[in-house]
Amino acid sequence: MAELQPVTSLKGKSIITAAQFTRPDIDALIRLATALKEKICAGEVLRFLEGRIMTPLFFEDSSRTLNSFCAAMARLGGRVVYFKAETSSVNKGETLGDTVRTLDSYSDVLVLRHPKQEAITEAVAKATHPVLNAGNGAGEHPTQALLDVLTIHSELGRVDGSTIAMIGDLKMGRTVHSLLKLLVRNFKMKTIFFVAPDALQMPQDVVDSLKQEIAASGVTIRSSNSLTEEILGQCDVLYATRLQKERFAAAALDEAKALQAFEAAKADIVINAERMKKAKAKMIVMHPLPRNDELCTSVDEDPRAAYFRQMQYGMYMRMAILYSVLA
Amino acid sequence: MAELQPVTSLKGKSIITAAQFTRPDIDALIRLATALKEKICAGEVLRFLEGRIMTPLFFEDSSRTLNSFCAAMARLGGRVVYFKAETSSVNKGETLGDTVRTLDSYSDVLVLRHPKQEAITEAVAKATHPVLNAGNGAGEHPTQALLDVLTIHSELGRVDGSTIAMIGDLKMGRTVHSLLKLLVRNFKMKTIFFVAPDALQMPQDVVDSLKQEIAASGVTIRSSNSLTEEILGQCDVLYATRLQKERFAAAALDEAKALQAFEAAKADIVINAERMKKAKAKMIVMHPLPRNDELCTSVDEDPRAAYFRQMQYGMYMRMAILYSVLA
Amino acid sequence: MAELQPVTSLKGKSIITAAQFTRPDIDALIRLATALKEKICAGEVLRFLEGRIMTPLFFEDSSRTLNSFCAAMARLGGRVVYFKAETSSVNKGETLGDTVRTLDSYSDVLVLRHPKQEAITEAVAKATHPVLNAGNGAGEHPTQALLDVLTIHSELGRVDGSTIAMIGDLKMGRTVHSLLKLLVRNFKMKTIFFVAPDALQMPQDVVDSLKQEIAASGVTIRSSNSLTEEILGQCDVLYATRLQKERFAAAALDEAKALQAFEAAKADIVINAERMKKAKAKMIVMHPLPRNDELCTSVDEDPRAAYFRQMQYGMYMRMAILYSVLA
Repeated sequence: MAELQPVTSLKGKSIITAAQFTRPDIDALIRLATALKEKICAGEVLRFLEGRIMTPLFFEDSSRTLNSFCAAMARLGGRVVYFKAETSSVNKGETLGDTVRTLDSYSDVLVLRHPKQEAITEAVAKATHPVLNAGNGAGEHPTQALLDVLTIHSELGRVDGSTIAMIGDLKMGRTVHSLLKLLVRNFKMKTIFFVAPDALQMPQDVVDSLKQEIAASGVTIRSSNSLTEEILGQCDVLYATRLQKERFAAAALDEAKALQAFEAAKADIVINAERMKKAKAKMIVMHPLPRNDELCTSVDEDPRAAYFRQMQYGMYMRMAILYSVLA
Repeated sequence: MAELQPVTSLKGKSIITAAQFTRPDIDALIRLATALKEKICAGEVLRFLEGRIMTPLFFEDSSRTLNSFCAAMARLGGRVVYFKAETSSVNKGETLGDTVRTLDSYSDVLVLRHPKQEAITEAVAKATHPVLNAGNGAGEHPTQALLDVLTIHSELGRVDGSTIAMIGDLKMGRTVHSLLKLLVRNFKMKTIFFVAPDALQMPQDVVDSLKQEIAASGVTIRSSNSLTEEILGQCDVLYATRLQKERFAAAALDEAKALQAFEAAKADIVINAERMKKAKAKMIVMHPLPRNDELCTSVDEDPRAAYFRQMQYGMYMRMAILYSVLA
Repeated sequence: MAELQPVTSLKGKSIITAAQFTRPDIDALIRLATALKEKICAGEVLRFLEGRIMTPLFFEDSSRTLNSFCAAMARLGGRVVYFKAETSSVNKGETLGDTVRTLDSYSDVLVLRHPKQEAITEAVAKATHPVLNAGNGAGEHPTQALLDVLTIHSELGRVDGSTIAMIGDLKMGRTVHSLLKLLVRNFKMKTIFFVAPDALQMPQDVVDSLKQEIAASGVTIRSSNSLTEEILGQCDVLYATRLQKERFAAAALDEAKALQAFEAAKADIVINAERMKKAKAKMIVMHPLPRNDELCTSVDEDPRAAYFRQMQYGMYMRMAILYSVLA
């Protein structure tokens, strides 16, 4: 059974960006998350964070991130204070800064999701305790990137040397931005495919900001508008993200055109049972969920569909983070 | 002091319908709930479910069912993850199936209330952990039926041989459907009265589906439009349910007629201090609550008014169920 | 290290008004809150209220009161059932009395915030367990008054003999009503200034109801429309409350006039870095928060700004209250 060692470099630290993690941090988090998973699956009761309080400040809808953080805290013996933005003094015009300072007064750690990109920096500046970024607008989602790497490592046995296709809305998807950052900075990936319609491709400035790391790691980066047989044949990981009709409406002149463009884009990248026949025997399909129909339920029972297991890895990774930050 | 024995036949099982319980199951649950009540009233701290997580998925308003499940889990030392449908990915169009799979990833047991009757079967199919039905549309409410039987047993000393009147909206009331099922399948009731205006009478198909059990148990079934002196004189239990104006509006041609019909129906069945004078000295009044004015507050201080105690039995029965399912 | 002694006179009692506390009660609560603070700051895990359940019934928005009560309960090892009025049977027309009786069935203590002043008395009448008043309309907010006194005592070393200015909306502010009551009944204050525009001054009936205590304590009471240099030079405590534009709109004939009156009033009483230069070197600024711009963020980094520390004292005072009521 693996040893439970908090990652000491994270002690008392806020989690802001995927860029703050070194390879040794990530490896240690993977080991810790795996050890915690073993303990929980063995039915052990953990009390590492007894008496400690986590308060999630969620200003956007969430199912997975919020609830897996809450479950992670509970499984470590810690407590959650369920702040509700919608019935709080935010309604009386209270600023984010004052709200953060308030909950920081009662808590040992805050978890923040906010539609504005700058919210996380502001919160970190005001709080005396660590703040964990659970999504800042179109910015980042670093704990998602960490759980994604844990999923790849656990399911395939390694991350280095693997080929991944990021598929769907790569433009606004903070999930894939954080994951890309984490992968090219810390791992020796073989190839990364960006599979998206032009309007939703990975933003050039995100790629440019990683130029040096891309060169250093030797990864091949390739873009495509469709999930071709060639790509399917090479990938160890298909990482799909949600395709939203609204994004096409914003770009098109009329609604009929938008719908047509959306349907065409979807047909080119949808992951379904048919396409899965062209994929490798040992590979995984991932998705941060929720999904629209870019990922068919016909794939759900395929053993290579890892997206439901990915949610569980999320809880274990968040346990590893909370334990390391608060230990 | 009674012994704390989880009901082993429930271990790892979902709770879907009142029909799934055998008489020995019910007797064992009553014994367990009673033993748990004794412990809690004696101020004992229980840790049976320490480290276990319950997530309620409530897609309909609730005061009693939701909060008594949460209190029950807490009183067993377990934890609750407070999923909020109204600020979840349900808003991004996530299906019930995916939402269930998500929370199932983090939890040891789910509790589902949903307006659609088929939701519970779908949830049970998707989840890897037990799902407890906390009300599925006009379908069932099995844990309510169990707490109702616990209430009758605890207050009157027995269920067999007793006479009950079910009063009010028997048409849409999932509560009385589940209770009727539980009683005629497992107990030797003397008489069951259905007291309701014609438009809200117990549906014939519910009665037909129990034909065999009714015959086998020897219970007499009688219908009435009003809570007569004759019925009041025989009943050990008056079980009232909420009468809603809206139900009459749907049936009537105009609003004035609907109101008139509603007032007339209510006058015929309302439980008030006056009617309680005709009831037996040893009997109880029950109501799943919330109430409208079919049950007068003038009855609240009558020692035979068991509806507030009924809520407490609810917590103890839900403790017995959670402990048995998760032990 | 201070001793942890629950305040025995509070055992099993509801908290309704600031008037119910004697000086020995208050002194004992201050000692207990201070001792609890030391324990928590030393990282100790407390289990005094393990197995006990607190249910907050909040029918008005809240950030500080709600969340500090929840954190207080958690830090004592107790549990919180998160009742949500907005998705409860309140939507089906359930009365406050029935809702209170319901949650009382599952809980060991209730915490009530309600827009109606008479709600707290009704709740106390229906509940079999203690109910803590967390704000009843324009009535009282007794636990806030207690935490305010704890703040003054902890920050300045004493309450007796000090001078306080209450500033802002003194008319509707239940916070200052409760604090005034607590101070003049139990402490020998030197001077109390009421600093507010005429329309928002301390109501005469509040002052009249304390006539005897004011005379007995020898405190000087003075009113002013502006926070003058003279007042600033004497005060040990500046206690600001939120100034709302809406209050001026109600009094003025047209909106432009209302805004003008509001801006004028604000200019006369606003606490900013400039005014702080005239204040004593050893004094504190308090505010129950949330704030509007009657309290400038330019004061936030001033060591005399005690309003963020005040929130933490709030958690410790509520721990002292919960421990004493439930011990």
